[in-house]
Amino acid sequence: MSERKRRGSTVERYIVNRLTAKGFACLRAPASGSKRKQPVPDIVALKDGVIIIIEVKSRASEENIYVNRDQAEGITKFSERSGGELFLAIKSPSGIRFLDFSKLRQTRGGNFVADKNLISSGMSLEDLVRHVESKLVKKLDLFA
Amino acid sequence: MSERKRRGSTVERYIVNRLTAKGFACLRAPASGSKRKQPVPDIVALKDGVIIIIEVKSRASEENIYVNRDQAEGITKFSERSGGELFLAIKSPSGIRFLDFSKLRQTRGGNFVADKNLISSGMSLEDLVRHVESKLVKKLDLFA
Repeated sequence: MSERKRRGSTVERYIVNRLTAKGFACLRAPASGSKRKQPVPDIVALKDGVIIIIEVKSRASEENIYVNRDQAEGITKFSERSGGELFLAIKSPSGIRFLDFSKLRQTRGGNFVADKNLISSGMSLEDLVRHVESKLVKKLDLFA
Repeated sequence: MSERKRRGSTVERYIVNRLTAKGFACLRAPASGSKRKQPVPDIVALKDGVIIIIEVKSRASEENIYVNRDQAEGITKFSERSGGELFLAIKSPSGIRFLDFSKLRQTRGGNFVADKNLISSGMSLEDLVRHVESKLVKKLDLFA
């Protein structure tokens, strides 16, 4: 396993462990590199009917993050079918940020980019948990 | 990989491919045997906000199927946290049946058993898809 994949896997496990501690049911995708016809996201996190889809990227410095077009299309399609919300989790030396994937900018080549400003505006893990819990409250209100 | 695991994995892929063709977003768990603290189900299948959790068992003849207590507790807890529905998918020479996990009988030892009658009363894959689609219609009605 490459250093980059190993690091990504460590971040995935960290996110899964933290969300599990917050009451989520989390499933990680099988290690990438397996024979998959279509890209699937790294993590599916579920809580009381709320569906969160997470793709994880790790970077050693504070540069921009790119998601190539095929991968972006695969995980966007997965998220749309699921009825969930898609987030890009970026682990950098300054911590982990969760970005609404629809906020990423598409380049002329069709790839997607998260620049430094977008990344620094992302949610912390605690923000993400609060976001999901606010959706749960709204769901309950529907039945009140 | 043991013959039994290999067979289970083939059935998982078959179910994922069929459900994906029906518009689901499906994620398979990493191969079992990885260092997991708590059991996770084999497949999470999502469609427009409906969450289906699937544990897969394969058997070479028409005998009863057992799920050991630890595994049953793990996948039940996962399903409860997710807000989804838990099914046991049983592949036998006569085909695949999906059983509502809560219908399994608990033995004195704490394990869970699906006997022949329960298995033969299970849903086909098409039944499962219709079941999910009927839930989608009900969801839409809520907002009508």
